[in-house]
Amino acid sequence: MYKLTQVQSGVCASDGFFADGVSAGLKKEGAKDMAFIYSDTLCDIASVFTTNKMCAAPIKHFRAKGDFQTNFVMINSKNANAMTGKAGIEDIEDVLASSQEQVINPVMSSTGVIGVRLPKQKIIEGMKLFDLSARNPHAAAQAIMTTDTFSKECAYKVELEDGSFFHIGAMAKGAGMINPAMATMLCFITTDAAVSKAQMQEILDEVTITTFNAASVDGDTSTNDTVMLLSNAKSGVYHKEAFKEALYNIMLFLAKEMVRDGEGATKLVTYDVTGAKDNQEAEIVAKALSNSLLVKTALFGEDPNWGRIASTVGASGVEAYEESLSISFDDLCVYKNGELLFDAAMEKEAAAVMQKQSFTISCDLGVANGSFRAFGCDLGYEYVKINADYRT
Amino acid sequence: MYKLTQVQSGVCASDGFFADGVSAGLKKEGAKDMAFIYSDTLCDIASVFTTNKMCAAPIKHFRAKGDFQTNFVMINSKNANAMTGKAGIEDIEDVLASSQEQVINPVMSSTGVIGVRLPKQKIIEGMKLFDLSARNPHAAAQAIMTTDTFSKECAYKVELEDGSFFHIGAMAKGAGMINPAMATMLCFITTDAAVSKAQMQEILDEVTITTFNAASVDGDTSTNDTVMLLSNAKSGVYHKEAFKEALYNIMLFLAKEMVRDGEGATKLVTYDVTGAKDNQEAEIVAKALSNSLLVKTALFGEDPNWGRIASTVGASGVEAYEESLSISFDDLCVYKNGELLFDAAMEKEAAAVMQKQSFTISCDLGVANGSFRAFGCDLGYEYVKINADYRT
Repeated sequence: MYKLTQVQSGVCASDGFFADGVSAGLKKEGAKDMAFIYSDTLCDIASVFTTNKMCAAPIKHFRAKGDFQTNFVMINSKNANAMTGKAGIEDIEDVLASSQEQVINPVMSSTGVIGVRLPKQKIIEGMKLFDLSARNPHAAAQAIMTTDTFSKECAYKVELEDGSFFHIGAMAKGAGMINPAMATMLCFITTDAAVSKAQMQEILDEVTITTFNAASVDGDTSTNDTVMLLSNAKSGVYHKEAFKEALYNIMLFLAKEMVRDGEGATKLVTYDVTGAKDNQEAEIVAKALSNSLLVKTALFGEDPNWGRIASTVGASGVEAYEESLSISFDDLCVYKNGELLFDAAMEKEAAAVMQKQSFTISCDLGVANGSFRAFGCDLGYEYVKINADYRT
Repeated sequence: MYKLTQVQSGVCASDGFFADGVSAGLKKEGAKDMAFIYSDTLCDIASVFTTNKMCAAPIKHFRAKGDFQTNFVMINSKNANAMTGKAGIEDIEDVLASSQEQVINPVMSSTGVIGVRLPKQKIIEGMKLFDLSARNPHAAAQAIMTTDTFSKECAYKVELEDGSFFHIGAMAKGAGMINPAMATMLCFITTDAAVSKAQMQEILDEVTITTFNAASVDGDTSTNDTVMLLSNAKSGVYHKEAFKEALYNIMLFLAKEMVRDGEGATKLVTYDVTGAKDNQEAEIVAKALSNSLLVKTALFGEDPNWGRIASTVGASGVEAYEESLSISFDDLCVYKNGELLFDAAMEKEAAAVMQKQSFTISCDLGVANGSFRAFGCDLGYEYVKINADYRT
């Protein structure tokens, strides 16, 4: 038995971790644009990166270091350092060479515009502003935001039966370019649990599938997607099931927060697909629904156009039949095994569900027992506005 | 040797074909909403239908008839007769039973809202308005429109060296729910060429790949997609290469017209992908580009954000390398083999290309010799507006 309690201090919830955000002049008007996470002892690292073949320089730089420990991660927003070739990697080396004395094997992570060299001098100046004894997790979470409208943090204290405890804390940024094939731009997680590196990686991989990899804003997979989990083992305590459950809670919360804050999104929709041939086919359907432009615009219009949901199921290529399909909005079944149930009264009820900020669309394919749950948002004018003008 | 000449009379360009559009009160304000194509002799039929598993009742009805000839196709807009089960098929039988005397093996085709039964009585009344001796191809093309802002027709006269000739004529409707996996809502083609049914089907399948299946508006594949080619062989003339070239010209023109008239679209963009591992990988990239929300919104914003193009190439999963990728806007190369060429002067030039109504984005992957060309449009506020309010 164990007890999970949510706590407030983000990536600093874990013992021995420090963090802050500063302004280095990358963003306009003095907004925070550089963050660090520092641990006073060395950390093991577990990580998941984008599957994009054009992965950014920070990811290449990280991978080239092989197996290592670190006590320092530095993150900048506004510039992704992607498509910058060897020069982009050299820029990282130059910047990290100016790290403070106590920093060992520093790691960098970036998010922002693709195809522009890092403003190296500004970043080096920014690093001088870092106070490694600061515990300002919220400032760090704000500094890594790009088109996010709110910062995203989550942390748990995990208490075991004997009274011993450990922590997991996290921050993330999301908003656009979010897709089931690695669904976060950046997420940094700290823990003082005494977890082995191998087990930490195994659990991170597993939890990613049903959290970040089940979330979609626009079906695009970025060059910089990164989830990094740092453990300094300071608590000396570990419990596998408790660790996994807390990590799942944190990553699910952050994944939903990212979708809820999807560019221009006004709704968070859960797609519950059941009755598919297998879990894989259920996943295909759930992700097709969360990525369909016609479904997303109907959500924005609060139009219970269940025909588009049926059409998207049919277009996804999985085994499905008009005669065995059922569709519900929350608990309201609008189509059942080929029977048209929809009338004016039901339309009114369905429209009321769609006016909610958060609801579930369920599709039972009636084929076998495969299931998957995905998270998506609507697509409105603001998405177009944000992305038509992104670089200006 | 042969000569292709574009002619004006749409589906009536071919000898022996008649067509018209009437208003049966399905659309508001007396707009035309029912069309027919009639041939005074029986026709062979070649066809390509949607791959959507929830295919609409008219497609099921057509397929159930097996191998047959017809002289009459009736089309209604505003109601797709999809997700209507057996009742939807019975509705078609009831409606077609009221066809005029000279009609043999009539075929029906529908487009519009999914999941609503056909307004049978209105349609039966509408059929009484059909004058089978009318030659009003433009009225027919208008009657099949849904969110289209202009009607789409194209026809050719094909003259052989000995002075003999035949015709191919077509009309189409498109606009939304258009995707490379069968890229038209509805397209009807007539010919008086003496082509065999088998060869007509073979050529239709082949030409579909590089025309309708290379066009995308929103990445959704509808329940009703249909291309139907009717031949009455009246000319007694046939020439395979000439027939294929004319059919390709017609279908390419209509595919581009559909994309140009994509819901809310302001631009027609050609994606020319070369240097891929093989043609299939080139096709994956070209379609990923034409479907990417981030690329489409950048097009709408006239923002030469080539980084999003690189990112989409990388996310598509094909073999690609930052170091061997090149990207051009028309003739302006903005990224070449890993070299950042983009500066303020080039940005100005690139922005000028993007302000055009029609231009080409080329991606050379530098891997091998695979190539594919796709067609797409931008995504702006109007797309959201049209699709958020579609049923109202």
